Amino acid sequence: MLLCDIGNSSFYFKRGDKTYKESVLSFDVRSMKEKVYFISVNTKINPVLKTLKNWIDISTYIDTTKYYKTMGIDRIVLMQDVSNAIIIDAGSAITVDIIKNNNFMGGFIYPGLNAMNKTYEDISPLLKYDFNFDADLQTLPKNSQDAISYGYLKTLYSEVMSHNLDIVLTGGDAHLFKKIFKMARVDEELIFKGMKKILENHSFTNGVKFD
Amino acid sequence: MLLCDIGNSSFYFKRGDKTYKESVLSFDVRSMKEKVYFISVNTKINPVLKTLKNWIDISTYIDTTKYYKTMGIDRIVLMQDVSNAIIIDAGSAITVDIIKNNNFMGGFIYPGLNAMNKTYEDISPLLKYDFNFDADLQTLPKNSQDAISYGYLKTLYSEVMSHNLDIVLTGGDAHLFKKIFKMARVDEELIFKGMKKILENHSFTNGVKFD
Repeated sequence: MLLCDIGNSSFYFKRGDKTYKESVLSFDVRSMKEKVYFISVNTKINPVLKTLKNWIDISTYIDTTKYYKTMGIDRIVLMQDVSNAIIIDAGSAITVDIIKNNNFMGGFIYPGLNAMNKTYEDISPLLKYDFNFDADLQTLPKNSQDAISYGYLKTLYSEVMSHNLDIVLTGGDAHLFKKIFKMARVDEELIFKGMKKILENHSFTNGVKFD
Repeated sequence: MLLCDIGNSSFYFKRGDKTYKESVLSFDVRSMKEKVYFISVNTKINPVLKTLKNWIDISTYIDTTKYYKTMGIDRIVLMQDVSNAIIIDAGSAITVDIIKNNNFMGGFIYPGLNAMNKTYEDISPLLKYDFNFDADLQTLPKNSQDAISYGYLKTLYSEVMSHNLDIVLTGGDAHLFKKIFKMARVDEELIFKGMKKILENHSFTNGVKFD
């Protein structure tokens, strides 16, 4: 079975135990002849996929009324195989969602690494530094690089920790943020686990088999 | 006595009980004939002021070794008349500094309102919202506007509150942030209080009188 998570910059595939990525710029969806079970936040590609019978949008299998209208489908799917946790998806944006007893409690959006780097630089060239992920966030900063690293990372850390839940890290920058959230579990395939769960539930409820 | 705090966009004056602002774009420093005691973070204007005898840079009266090399002089001056507090200066950047028993413990830098608004918009046009300063930060968001408002404001709030100190708010957006930090004291003239303290100390130590 072939699964695909489509973002704004890449196609993230999973076939069997293997995962791989294709760039949105170079990959032609028409070249695929086999069935692909997908979710997508890519508004440019979605109309094309609607015309292709072998691309099956599994977001239609979810009861989205439990979430909110403008919520990204990727955030919803990430929660499907989690019962109690705070999920941090560290990509171009960082989404933080809370699930308790299988219920979505709410979540928030924080800027991703590159976006926030640019923010500080735009405020003043004097604030143009890479974030120091090795900074000791238990000590108040006394230099500019740590002052912006702490501003970006410790604020997020303080908020996340206040919820007192298991932390699951996913997304492209998961391993970097693991340096800050040392107690977190990194799961780069959480999105595929969610997709499988959706297919299983749909299969069970509707007696459909997926191949 | 005339005091002036010079930023990148304006001259902020205090004469007697009155304060007023002049734009950096239109105000000519040469037009002033009386003595002006000033601090400045404006690297374009500083060389001009050095040539004018009536503009007196009082940052030279401070022992800056207690702070750090690249720290803005405005942050240092804001702390001069505070003994125990966390100072939030909400401007184009938000600086947060902690003082305990008159000692600078360290501080951090967070993006200001306009900068952060642009950050979310740049990540995705779907995240272009004004921040909701009336959002209930005790409840996890279930809509996009609150999700970014919480991301920007609640993270800062959680970190600031974790220090368990009196909060003093200053800077152009102080009144807006008072909606989040309801327990804070707003002091828009904290910078002038710091400047006066510097002059008093210098006067006392060196027997100089200021007019």
